[in-house]
Amino acid sequence: MNRINKNERVGAIIKILTENPKKIYNLNYFCEIFDCAKSTLSEDIDIVKDIFEKFKLGEIETVTGAAGGVLYKPNMTKEQFKDFCTELCKKINNSERIIPGGYIYMNDLIYSADVSFNIGRALGSFFQDVDFDYIVTIETKGIPIALMTARVLNKPLVVVRKEGRLTEGTAIHMNYVTGSSKRIQTMYLAKRSIARDSKVIFIDDFMKAGGTAKGIIDLMKEFEAEVVGVGILMVTKEPEEKLIDNYHSLIVLEEIDSSSGEIIVKPSI
Amino acid sequence: MNRINKNERVGAIIKILTENPKKIYNLNYFCEIFDCAKSTLSEDIDIVKDIFEKFKLGEIETVTGAAGGVLYKPNMTKEQFKDFCTELCKKINNSERIIPGGYIYMNDLIYSADVSFNIGRALGSFFQDVDFDYIVTIETKGIPIALMTARVLNKPLVVVRKEGRLTEGTAIHMNYVTGSSKRIQTMYLAKRSIARDSKVIFIDDFMKAGGTAKGIIDLMKEFEAEVVGVGILMVTKEPEEKLIDNYHSLIVLEEIDSSSGEIIVKPSI
Repeated sequence: MNRINKNERVGAIIKILTENPKKIYNLNYFCEIFDCAKSTLSEDIDIVKDIFEKFKLGEIETVTGAAGGVLYKPNMTKEQFKDFCTELCKKINNSERIIPGGYIYMNDLIYSADVSFNIGRALGSFFQDVDFDYIVTIETKGIPIALMTARVLNKPLVVVRKEGRLTEGTAIHMNYVTGSSKRIQTMYLAKRSIARDSKVIFIDDFMKAGGTAKGIIDLMKEFEAEVVGVGILMVTKEPEEKLIDNYHSLIVLEEIDSSSGEIIVKPSI
Repeated sequence: MNRINKNERVGAIIKILTENPKKIYNLNYFCEIFDCAKSTLSEDIDIVKDIFEKFKLGEIETVTGAAGGVLYKPNMTKEQFKDFCTELCKKINNSERIIPGGYIYMNDLIYSADVSFNIGRALGSFFQDVDFDYIVTIETKGIPIALMTARVLNKPLVVVRKEGRLTEGTAIHMNYVTGSSKRIQTMYLAKRSIARDSKVIFIDDFMKAGGTAKGIIDLMKEFEAEVVGVGILMVTKEPEEKLIDNYHSLIVLEEIDSSSGEIIVKPSI
């Protein structure tokens, strides 16, 4: 390879860091690719940092020590966070989304790779400094946003099933009661999914009374794991008293007015 | 903002393109951010192109015309593709993955945001030049890799359900027969999920005889949509005759030998 100039080093570093959020790259890794001295590379990293700061593109962090290096956190600024949630609320407040029975059609949003990635960035921002091992969600609609949160925080995703599957081996299954409709449901999780003594963050698309979240907390106890954070895309205003105490959300659903076609939904913060 | 130098422009362009695969950015968009002339920006884009080529980081493409601009395709080179599939096979060939009944535990791989993103890149490489409107998958395990393929190709994802859900409104449901075990199953899809006359690509994690893929092709006919491509993570060698003719896959499962603990799995190409 020909001599590599500063432009090229900075560009390639940005490409690699951006595509691998929260993954720590040891400086030696880049020194080898570029065949350059560590001091040169330190200067490059400073430039990368400045670029991300100047254009509000997220955070570049250097970690010192033996396992140290450089990593990219796809954080949103407070303003970007608020703008994104406001924009999302605008998209949701559309009478055509109202489904008989008081539901809201959201598939086009949560299944959009672009929107779900930004939901992941937004939800991830609550947990950037939390020490944990897995992102946990429950099938089906929570999966895309949970996967993107997992990507942003660089942790493995675990998907709890509502039906037992032979294909996943021995599983723990558990009944739980939904919070608002008081129906009995079942959740299943393959035994090998989570190592003992793990810490997990639960991510879901929707929460009313919090029965599912409480169910997940109980299920995790069976795995001797602890839920150290809960992040939800949309929570309902009512009931105000939820079955769980601590959770973060992006938006609050206040009311669906089927007659006027208004969906009153607001950013949580 | 202070004057912006070439380093900074190139770096910020790379960050934005990388985080938004296959999204076309008009050059004016960058000219405004950087307050620079279009000729300057064209030079920057050439540098970006060179960097991606030099370090094999994917492809930067310029599109001419009114709707033109620049975009990033997260393509793998043939070598990267082969290395990734070979690496995946190595990870799969582990006796601890064998589940009674002849199944393989793959959750840790397909639910890993990192692995699923690279599976998405690899599957996406088959369809980079195909004209289509949606990525379609069926719950549950196909969702992560389908979402990542959708991200790589910048198309919306549509998830077919196995159970009807009130929360998605009017749906078309259809029975189909699984290819190998000849069981009758049901698939559901909300009517508003897919516009008429659409072209779709079906992505799934596993295919044996191809009954599910055939079911999806039939379901799409109900939506007056056409399946123009099929991409599967892992197909079984037997039966060699599948129920569908054209599909792409990453790896082939030849045999599970429960007694020796060998899972014989090879890259498809």
